[in-house]
Amino acid sequence: MTQFITDNFLLETKSAERLYFEYAETMPIIDYHCHLSSLEVATNRQFDNITQIWLGGDHYKWRAMRAAGIHEKFITGDAPDREKFNAWADVVPQTIRSPLFHWTMLELNRPFGINDRFLNPGTADSIWSICNEILMNPLFHARGIMEQMRVKLVCTTDDPVDDLKFHRQIADENQTGTFSVKVIPAFRPDKVLPWACTAPEGIVSWKAYIEKLGIAANAEINSFAALRAALLSRHDYFHQNGCRISDHGFGLFQWTEKGSDTEKEAIFARILNDQTISPEDALILSSSLLTDIAVANAEKNWTMQLHIGALRNNSTRIFNTLGPDAGCDSIIDGPFAVPLSRFLDRLDREEKLPKTIVYNLNPDSNYMLAALIANFNDGSYPGKMQYGSGWWFLDQKNGMEDQINTLSNTGLLGRFVGMLTDSRSFLSYTRHEYFRRILCNMLGNDMEKGLIPNDFDWIGKMVQDISYNNAKEYFGFELN
Amino acid sequence: MTQFITDNFLLETKSAERLYFEYAETMPIIDYHCHLSSLEVATNRQFDNITQIWLGGDHYKWRAMRAAGIHEKFITGDAPDREKFNAWADVVPQTIRSPLFHWTMLELNRPFGINDRFLNPGTADSIWSICNEILMNPLFHARGIMEQMRVKLVCTTDDPVDDLKFHRQIADENQTGTFSVKVIPAFRPDKVLPWACTAPEGIVSWKAYIEKLGIAANAEINSFAALRAALLSRHDYFHQNGCRISDHGFGLFQWTEKGSDTEKEAIFARILNDQTISPEDALILSSSLLTDIAVANAEKNWTMQLHIGALRNNSTRIFNTLGPDAGCDSIIDGPFAVPLSRFLDRLDREEKLPKTIVYNLNPDSNYMLAALIANFNDGSYPGKMQYGSGWWFLDQKNGMEDQINTLSNTGLLGRFVGMLTDSRSFLSYTRHEYFRRILCNMLGNDMEKGLIPNDFDWIGKMVQDISYNNAKEYFGFELN
Amino acid sequence: MTQFITDNFLLETKSAERLYFEYAETMPIIDYHCHLSSLEVATNRQFDNITQIWLGGDHYKWRAMRAAGIHEKFITGDAPDREKFNAWADVVPQTIRSPLFHWTMLELNRPFGINDRFLNPGTADSIWSICNEILMNPLFHARGIMEQMRVKLVCTTDDPVDDLKFHRQIADENQTGTFSVKVIPAFRPDKVLPWACTAPEGIVSWKAYIEKLGIAANAEINSFAALRAALLSRHDYFHQNGCRISDHGFGLFQWTEKGSDTEKEAIFARILNDQTISPEDALILSSSLLTDIAVANAEKNWTMQLHIGALRNNSTRIFNTLGPDAGCDSIIDGPFAVPLSRFLDRLDREEKLPKTIVYNLNPDSNYMLAALIANFNDGSYPGKMQYGSGWWFLDQKNGMEDQINTLSNTGLLGRFVGMLTDSRSFLSYTRHEYFRRILCNMLGNDMEKGLIPNDFDWIGKMVQDISYNNAKEYFGFELN
Repeated sequence: MTQFITDNFLLETKSAERLYFEYAETMPIIDYHCHLSSLEVATNRQFDNITQIWLGGDHYKWRAMRAAGIHEKFITGDAPDREKFNAWADVVPQTIRSPLFHWTMLELNRPFGINDRFLNPGTADSIWSICNEILMNPLFHARGIMEQMRVKLVCTTDDPVDDLKFHRQIADENQTGTFSVKVIPAFRPDKVLPWACTAPEGIVSWKAYIEKLGIAANAEINSFAALRAALLSRHDYFHQNGCRISDHGFGLFQWTEKGSDTEKEAIFARILNDQTISPEDALILSSSLLTDIAVANAEKNWTMQLHIGALRNNSTRIFNTLGPDAGCDSIIDGPFAVPLSRFLDRLDREEKLPKTIVYNLNPDSNYMLAALIANFNDGSYPGKMQYGSGWWFLDQKNGMEDQINTLSNTGLLGRFVGMLTDSRSFLSYTRHEYFRRILCNMLGNDMEKGLIPNDFDWIGKMVQDISYNNAKEYFGFELN
Repeated sequence: MTQFITDNFLLETKSAERLYFEYAETMPIIDYHCHLSSLEVATNRQFDNITQIWLGGDHYKWRAMRAAGIHEKFITGDAPDREKFNAWADVVPQTIRSPLFHWTMLELNRPFGINDRFLNPGTADSIWSICNEILMNPLFHARGIMEQMRVKLVCTTDDPVDDLKFHRQIADENQTGTFSVKVIPAFRPDKVLPWACTAPEGIVSWKAYIEKLGIAANAEINSFAALRAALLSRHDYFHQNGCRISDHGFGLFQWTEKGSDTEKEAIFARILNDQTISPEDALILSSSLLTDIAVANAEKNWTMQLHIGALRNNSTRIFNTLGPDAGCDSIIDGPFAVPLSRFLDRLDREEKLPKTIVYNLNPDSNYMLAALIANFNDGSYPGKMQYGSGWWFLDQKNGMEDQINTLSNTGLLGRFVGMLTDSRSFLSYTRHEYFRRILCNMLGNDMEKGLIPNDFDWIGKMVQDISYNNAKEYFGFELN
Repeated sequence: MTQFITDNFLLETKSAERLYFEYAETMPIIDYHCHLSSLEVATNRQFDNITQIWLGGDHYKWRAMRAAGIHEKFITGDAPDREKFNAWADVVPQTIRSPLFHWTMLELNRPFGINDRFLNPGTADSIWSICNEILMNPLFHARGIMEQMRVKLVCTTDDPVDDLKFHRQIADENQTGTFSVKVIPAFRPDKVLPWACTAPEGIVSWKAYIEKLGIAANAEINSFAALRAALLSRHDYFHQNGCRISDHGFGLFQWTEKGSDTEKEAIFARILNDQTISPEDALILSSSLLTDIAVANAEKNWTMQLHIGALRNNSTRIFNTLGPDAGCDSIIDGPFAVPLSRFLDRLDREEKLPKTIVYNLNPDSNYMLAALIANFNDGSYPGKMQYGSGWWFLDQKNGMEDQINTLSNTGLLGRFVGMLTDSRSFLSYTRHEYFRRILCNMLGNDMEKGLIPNDFDWIGKMVQDISYNNAKEYFGFELN
């Protein structure tokens, strides 16, 4: 076959090609939101085979395999890695028009250099062999892959109880020059919010978690005030360790201003007494803690990321056997404009609204959300309120085009901080290539249609800003 | 004029043409969901004129005529057939960009062979004459049309009280060889659900219906247990008569796991006593019956179809004069991800989730729904959970493209069971042509843009699978 | 640079060009919904500089400037006009892909004739000078601009308490021939609805407003019946002054049939006694008044416009300093199909449903809304129920294309009453050019793809109807 990932892959016009090759291609990568393991970077993990690095934690692929009728044994079960790879090779030809097909071809192409064959049962043998041999090369261990993909900085996603020792170790190596890529923590305090305490079994696990938090903060958490203090002390600790971003996951976004300090303490006391609390009371405490973190973000000039709209763990059967993040999550529906507006307004009123990036999973909220956050641009920082790039099920060509169009029509595309991988895998950096090709294609097409100026300095700079410069400036990362 | 339905109608590229003509065009049709009358097939209905076969029950056309300012007399009233046809001919030129325009031209072209003129007041005379003459030819009676359109099998939509005698008669003729097209019933038990019993007049009509059900099941329905048993005995009866699909219509999808058997009997007793029940109680009984049918489906390897999102009978004035299905239905809005997830999870947990096709009427649910059902693919059957083709208001070019794109981005397009007509008319089979042209156009364009492999064996097989093979395999129909 | 607004701007095919230049370009304009000041037309306002006419009340631009990090001083603050213009010139290059970029270029081109440069810091000086000199020319005072843009009629948006004296003055001048453009009021009674009375401070402002209404109606409003009578007397007054359209703004649309006359009087009495009312009670009164106006519209053959879906005044900080319409509005979400259906059905049942145009701000309602209103076409008037053109955040190329596609797929595009500016500025008439180019582009592309007949008489007439003729007929305006 001829190559599938051609030079002009996704680039439909000469202008698009010029924008990509002259402006986008060689820009470095800031991957400001991902789920990489700091341990694996710190230890420079070597992968025994392609299954480990490619299929190990990739619930996107698991879903496709289940849809293709593959038995769970070959997905998350105890089948040998080679058999799992074969199962995936059976499925890839069925992924035509899915982002998985493009991702697969992009990832085989870079870093593995395989672009002369599709992955299918007929090529599984050869691809297995080639990749596994390559993975033995130190340039293809965790760090090598990051460096060859021009990654300058990644933000992992970390629990407040994490001691960040691997981040510190990597930071030391950044100093001494043994490793160039910065690995910054992000503060993800979802587990602190007492949503689980509406059910008896939830109280047990939540209190066990809070105990860990107390240990991490070196504090006894015997009141809601103590909980807030402990959480904010971890916020300080993360700041000292380079963190500049918090991250928050929501189903349907909810928020309330209700609840006095006295009421909050009373609710908290009920949890300490192992009594379940009502959803309304859980909302009061959760809203309060979220607001505290937002204010702390503003005070430390962090950025707040809100990921809105996941409906998680739909299959009880899979959750009971595999736990969360097993490929059984989808999209929730329902209104949330009003509470989100109230939350942002509360912060804005007190001049404590941090830089904010909001991502939605349900595309029916695209315009609502992009227009809503723009109400709170206050002239303090260009592009302060960011409509985030296509997330999860929307992280594909149509979804990215929709996000870019929605942002273009409701805000300033030129201020966009751009792409991230959101990935658990070291092989996902070609997502940035994918995004940049799509972005350049849209802008190039617009140029040739006369919809935007045919001025490469102007538009090319915009491409570079979105690819790299905006993120660098926005988050205030110190990079060469 | 030159022909409007050209060979390359909707096919924008050479690759699209090749996919359509080499792979799609001659595939037979399985119309696995429609509203044809089994009586009309059994009796091989002859139509006196084009108005009868074309305008008689077509509420799509009625809506367009009302929007064009046509008086009801010429739509559903007592005007002569010829005058109704003239009224429609007045309206057709105004349907530019509506699916009605394409459908009209496709249906005049096939089976009538009229492709040298548009329908308008100037051509109404000639088209009236040509069509009516053709309709006298036995090849253009009900059965003749089905056969010349390469229909292998249709599934009608039938009430559990139906005795299916026409289906049996047709099945006999299939055996003896006097008629080749299989006509299979589908089990549509919407009327069994006691939604109406929240109002006194609803109780009367519901009990009248339940009496019919009792007669059909040869059972006295004096308890909720007896109702369930009667319903399931009809499920058995339908199975014996070849049925393999149930079908369920919803406004906003609701479902609850609440309600013990005792509570259900108590609610049922209130209905028997002519007391209205609350919406919550109606939901308890309806959810219970729906679950029973789903389980029965799983046990018999049937497929469950869920049609979600219609807001019916909006105009009281029209409903009071014409009844339901009169062109006054539209689309409901509101969230339903959580109850649908709970329903499917309940079945999945007990390993009683049947193959399922879900259709949504509100396009704001496209991604939510396609992603949600994919949580429940369990590896047992390829493409087990199907995101159904564009339904009703979405059964048009943009809607089909959106459905194909949504499915592509959230699942495996190659496993899609494809198109159906959902029609009450014997003239709707060109909808399959319409769908196949659109599908081939999308895939052909993708090929030429380098988005999918330029491999006709691979992609052509996918086209054939979606056009026919997948449905044949998925439903397990025995066809030559 | 070469010109940006070329002859074929937005016109991608020869057919599109022919439709635009032969059919659309020279059609006059009926701007049936805008927010122009009748005072400024009556006094033929002259603008001192481009900032006054262009940036003065344009909250679209304010939002973009805030997003670009411009300080409020240069947006709505006390900076000199020239500095505000410079600030806008800084922002324009960042508006690539935003409708603001196209609007800016279109408005500089017409009426100012500037099409050889982009607005940016380097050209700000020259554009400031050129525009300001042109604005001194009487042909570029308020009336001159309207006339040179071929405007035949505009409908302003007016409060029921308005005395309409400027409308009468203009009507006199229309008679005497000193000014050709008709300026018709529209009846916007949003403030009459007692939504504010759910809060104590709202009661004060609402009663102050109702006092003004009483004065205008020359009536003492001491009962709900008196309020209705006063409101309807203003409806009469507006009718006598040429008004033919009412206009109503909603967040999430709500409506109820509940509430007897006695109950309504009791609720009203509570407000008179300065007691707050519940949201349910506010809904009862508001629904009642809305229904009254709708019935009055039907009786006088007016058109009712419903603008659904704004979430206003999100930023308390900005609202407290600048008041409403300051660029801090966005889009609400949530279901409303059922209450809207009930409202329209109630009117339809009693044969009191006026011609109606419905606009939605949340694009997730496009199909729901377009399909819903079409239920109530009753054959009385072609295109009676109108799905309105892209509104506010949807008034841009993608939004207009979506509106046209949604309408095409659910109704009769050929009956569409077309574009309006919804603007507060005399410089917005090129929005009609923008819309017509987009419409012609879509139809021309469809022609060349074989999706619609390649018949310029047929499609060209449709273009002219949508551009002008349909609005003229629909609203019954008397125009030469």
